[in-house]
Amino acid sequence: MEKRNVGILIFDDVEVLDFAGPYEVLSRTRLVPGAESRRSDESAPFRVFTVSKTGEMLRATGGLQVVPDHSFENAPEIGILVVPGGFGTRALLEDAETQEWIRGVAARAENVTSVCTGSLVLAKLGLLSGRRATTHWGALDLLRSIDGTVEVSAEERFVDDGILSSAGVSAGIDMAFHLVESLCGKECADETARYIDYPRNRQPDSD
Amino acid sequence: MEKRNVGILIFDDVEVLDFAGPYEVLSRTRLVPGAESRRSDESAPFRVFTVSKTGEMLRATGGLQVVPDHSFENAPEIGILVVPGGFGTRALLEDAETQEWIRGVAARAENVTSVCTGSLVLAKLGLLSGRRATTHWGALDLLRSIDGTVEVSAEERFVDDGILSSAGVSAGIDMAFHLVESLCGKECADETARYIDYPRNRQPDSD
Repeated sequence: MEKRNVGILIFDDVEVLDFAGPYEVLSRTRLVPGAESRRSDESAPFRVFTVSKTGEMLRATGGLQVVPDHSFENAPEIGILVVPGGFGTRALLEDAETQEWIRGVAARAENVTSVCTGSLVLAKLGLLSGRRATTHWGALDLLRSIDGTVEVSAEERFVDDGILSSAGVSAGIDMAFHLVESLCGKECADETARYIDYPRNRQPDSD
Repeated sequence: MEKRNVGILIFDDVEVLDFAGPYEVLSRTRLVPGAESRRSDESAPFRVFTVSKTGEMLRATGGLQVVPDHSFENAPEIGILVVPGGFGTRALLEDAETQEWIRGVAARAENVTSVCTGSLVLAKLGLLSGRRATTHWGALDLLRSIDGTVEVSAEERFVDDGILSSAGVSAGIDMAFHLVESLCGKECADETARYIDYPRNRQPDSD
């Protein structure tokens, strides 16, 4: 079985759960159900790694210290790109080198995804033009202002319109399970959710 | 305002979401609502840091590379201890030095918490004796076998009986919000949940 390479972009002030949620879901997915199959990568459909511009240690929000697996220069080919959000995206919106990297990877990737304000960066690159997309509830107007052709959804946990974007922070978990379901089937996604005790099929909030 | 020190124990093969969930919730909690208050630590009731035995870089499950903020030797006083789970807990059950550290911290902490199989380590130390507690669904029998006096709950997302334990992986997020509610009130917990777009009040699964 050919594993898909999942590259998660990380940067200073990336929101912890924005990258850790999809990391957890995609790295713990197994095509063989049960706890035992999680002890090895044998039936893992994804090979998940983190990538940053320099590959040097960085600090996520709250100060969590993470060492990326790869730099832009030495990252393997990426089939699934995850662009998380956080206050650090404000700097990315002005960072030509990171934007160029995302543009190149996105052009070759099978799946381009974002969590939270990660979609602002994709919008800045024109990748969301004419598409439906979402972001953190506090950044919906900003998303519209970056690209007026984006049809911004304020109601959904994630939006799959060629590019897969999610609402704020924890919605990245739901986005990741949607991706697993798209690529590996509902049974596999539900079993992985059960493994990490995530009630992905619970009813929506009443508020 | 006196901030509470939250020490999150991390170790090789700690499950990513087990520590990242509580890290996210507790580090993003603010007593002043809104997105602006998250730009500084001013109204943060918690000071969150990671601690490991040596303080050297380690690999969580899936290979995520994390550099702890502190070693056992140089960690600040801990008011709230978080013991996450993951396959790495198997080694902790045989690790006298880590157990001794947990025992010492737990004796002085105001709050001792666990996520997933982290409760196995607390049970090994006798800290759950005679208490209600929970763990990952796949480890319920193991928890019973470590300490037969623990009243093991198989139904709840978290159990607060002096020591606050949670069910598997993602349930650590719910555990952390319960802790925030206990210490800072329901309004603060709900506002923080809203900030990270986590529907903590959604209805339980139908399955």
